[in-house]
Amino acid sequence: MPDAPEAYRRLAQELREVALLKSCASVLGWDEQTYLPIHGAEHRAQQLAMLSGMAHDRATSPKLAELLSAAETAVPADDSRESASVREARRRFDRATKLPRRLVEELSHCATLSQQAWVGAKKARDFQAFRPWLEKMVALKREEAQAIGGAVPYDALLDEYEPGASSAEIADVFARLRNELVPLVQAIQQSPVKVDTSILTRSYPVAAQREFSRRGATTIGFDFDAGRLDEAAHPFCSGIGPGDCRLTTRYDEHHFPGAFFGTLHEAGHGIYEQGLVKEDFGLPVGDSCSLGIHESQSRMWENLVGRSRPFWDHFFPLAQKAFPEALGNATLDEFHTAINDVRPSWIRVEADEVTYNLHIMLRFELERPLIAGDLAPADLPGAWNDAFTKSFGMTPPHDALGCLQDVHWSAGLIGYFPTYSLGNMYAAQFFEQARTDIPDLDEQFRRGEFLALKTWLNRNIHERGMQYRASRLVELVTGKPLSAEPLLRHLKSRFGAIYKI
Amino acid sequence: MPDAPEAYRRLAQELREVALLKSCASVLGWDEQTYLPIHGAEHRAQQLAMLSGMAHDRATSPKLAELLSAAETAVPADDSRESASVREARRRFDRATKLPRRLVEELSHCATLSQQAWVGAKKARDFQAFRPWLEKMVALKREEAQAIGGAVPYDALLDEYEPGASSAEIADVFARLRNELVPLVQAIQQSPVKVDTSILTRSYPVAAQREFSRRGATTIGFDFDAGRLDEAAHPFCSGIGPGDCRLTTRYDEHHFPGAFFGTLHEAGHGIYEQGLVKEDFGLPVGDSCSLGIHESQSRMWENLVGRSRPFWDHFFPLAQKAFPEALGNATLDEFHTAINDVRPSWIRVEADEVTYNLHIMLRFELERPLIAGDLAPADLPGAWNDAFTKSFGMTPPHDALGCLQDVHWSAGLIGYFPTYSLGNMYAAQFFEQARTDIPDLDEQFRRGEFLALKTWLNRNIHERGMQYRASRLVELVTGKPLSAEPLLRHLKSRFGAIYKI
Repeated sequence: MPDAPEAYRRLAQELREVALLKSCASVLGWDEQTYLPIHGAEHRAQQLAMLSGMAHDRATSPKLAELLSAAETAVPADDSRESASVREARRRFDRATKLPRRLVEELSHCATLSQQAWVGAKKARDFQAFRPWLEKMVALKREEAQAIGGAVPYDALLDEYEPGASSAEIADVFARLRNELVPLVQAIQQSPVKVDTSILTRSYPVAAQREFSRRGATTIGFDFDAGRLDEAAHPFCSGIGPGDCRLTTRYDEHHFPGAFFGTLHEAGHGIYEQGLVKEDFGLPVGDSCSLGIHESQSRMWENLVGRSRPFWDHFFPLAQKAFPEALGNATLDEFHTAINDVRPSWIRVEADEVTYNLHIMLRFELERPLIAGDLAPADLPGAWNDAFTKSFGMTPPHDALGCLQDVHWSAGLIGYFPTYSLGNMYAAQFFEQARTDIPDLDEQFRRGEFLALKTWLNRNIHERGMQYRASRLVELVTGKPLSAEPLLRHLKSRFGAIYKI
Repeated sequence: MPDAPEAYRRLAQELREVALLKSCASVLGWDEQTYLPIHGAEHRAQQLAMLSGMAHDRATSPKLAELLSAAETAVPADDSRESASVREARRRFDRATKLPRRLVEELSHCATLSQQAWVGAKKARDFQAFRPWLEKMVALKREEAQAIGGAVPYDALLDEYEPGASSAEIADVFARLRNELVPLVQAIQQSPVKVDTSILTRSYPVAAQREFSRRGATTIGFDFDAGRLDEAAHPFCSGIGPGDCRLTTRYDEHHFPGAFFGTLHEAGHGIYEQGLVKEDFGLPVGDSCSLGIHESQSRMWENLVGRSRPFWDHFFPLAQKAFPEALGNATLDEFHTAINDVRPSWIRVEADEVTYNLHIMLRFELERPLIAGDLAPADLPGAWNDAFTKSFGMTPPHDALGCLQDVHWSAGLIGYFPTYSLGNMYAAQFFEQARTDIPDLDEQFRRGEFLALKTWLNRNIHERGMQYRASRLVELVTGKPLSAEPLLRHLKSRFGAIYKI
């Protein structure tokens, strides 16, 4: 039997080098979205293709296969961080090597062309222009699921984003959520309380927004000595490596929530990245647990904390100073109600905290039969509109407000959507536990203190990296398996109060 | 005999890939100087070490050796671009492979520590603290020169920056320059004209400087669709690849010339980079000719154009609008005289157009005996002060204003300094020719038109890349070998008029 520490050390060294190479591509990717001159796009594409090709070669090399086997023999399979790293490294290696090179190239090539076609089809509100590309992408993703194997093809895709998750379990918890969400939305719509959101579209000068967004991120605990906040067309968080995590947002003078809550959201992702164990960079245990857990961090800071009353007890007077023209004569009540407006709408990315999950479930319910072969891509618009009408009581007037709204499917990101709602549920369940463990959390927020919550997240979630699968992590942290109840309790409590229901 | 196009094509392909990899490191290097969070420094060092190691491995690989030999057999040695690329690729390959790995690593390691020691020694004005490091660096550079070979060790180092140049020829042209510069400086000092530069240290708000610097760079022809201007502690130009060239500058509210002429200088480098043949990226003929030629471009735009009267005939009214507080009541005469102040000073980087070259020659005259073994590093301060007194008629009060002022020697950049004055001489010689070829250049400048000069530089210099060695390029463009006369004519004409001598 090989020497365990030595076999593990050698595997870890190789994994770190692959990660280091990938992190170079992260810098180029961030730069592409923020500062790249327009004529530099072609050269950048060549640079990124070279780096990702080199990283893929190393991540699928016979050398890594040998190091993995040696480590698997040497490291006992238990709850240890070493064991988790070996397990996750194996999962990634198998995913990367099970796909024939031809399929990988076809997926990548087709995704590029398909996204271009989607942009045009969405603009023209013309599903038929996108249909052949959707058919190709679905066929390729079904082939991918086949190559990866497992009882349920959809789960093979889901596993890329939420390792170890099963669509059957997700369907159960989503069903529970929907059962209560639909009546909640109806009750809100029938409430006598009518929210006026015009306060949010007054003039918020961009320079002041920049300052205020940065202040928000700093106050909740994002470390600007180890990160940045820049502007990009599509906001994102890029954890480049230890000491370097970059957020982006976008500013619209006449829409306050976009940049501010967007920044809190990305800062939530960033605080997670900054909370990973630096010494474990490049190892699975130094990496984030899953997309769902990642989203739980961004959603917690954006919604559970950032749209709460105690948060604005602290921040509203500051906002009034920062935006005297827009908020000088406004009340905290008006403002807090406006940022919690609930209203069924066509577009997921503009949806409120309550209806958002209905948008996600709808996609999940269409993705599964698409991959199972039970729904033909040609029938997607009809199926979308039926499902939408059932959930929201209104029918999209055209496909750009319907099944053409998201980029994901055109890019081959199938199995990704459910992680958004998993994130919301994880967030609520973690937050309930944090409230139990830190009873005066609201008092702290009112004083502008967020360190106790951040530290709690660091210890319970961030530092654990991929040591446990998401479902296990939730049980370890909260003592219970994932459930829709904490999120439902939160939504009923917050919106019951606002809408007096 | 191998098929010439095929052997060349294969070599070119490999060279392009190595260059593509190096250009990834350029992005990370630029980011390090501009936007990297402070805690990201260690990770960045690891990323850059990995990328440069990979690039070095490919640039010295047996595969490249084979491709080079095949191309040398197949491509006839003539004036063609292909032949030049093979010749320069050979030169680079030999330089990279002649040095033992041990020496390369020692040089790199020692340069890092030596620069740190230099920073401390300069601050403490303590040459003795730096002496052991200088001794080590000089010993290593002498070893490097030995390994590269050639009759004159110094020339082996010089060749890295100015391929094909010889120190004997440089010494000749420098001697000619010095013969006339020293009396010119004396005449200026004895002139009854006393220049008042206080106009340049009034309040120039940074936001307006930013705007005005960008306008300057745009007007002379730097393309912001294929480049950027950002801020950095040490201004530089980084040509990352086709369509992507990045300049930096730094702003001081109370020093107008720093950012503006610094930007013109870097934009001159940038216009060169943007003028290289895009299709030849990665090949020597798609690369800049030498550091001296590069510097000729920056100096031409900064000094010959940027400090000229016709340039300010156009720009001064704009500057008055941009900086009404500082320049509202100033005259063009006052301003133009102030930006052409000549005054012996201790520090090279702050020197004017006339005395600058004396600073360079002094360093060249000390570097040569250091490498030849005729000057012991321990004797440098004395030798420096003697030479400085001879050139400037004053003796540095301490070594921070003397031999400790530049980073170059601590970083192992020996053989680099002469390229600055070569640049000044190339610039003046090219500019005389451009004036002959475009007789109404001054009229164009007065109208704010710089395209004819830029296009002339594109055709005559930029697009040629490394097709010819610098000395040959000068002859091709101007019909004469490099000479000090054009620079002397320019300096006597400009400063004779200002100082009435």
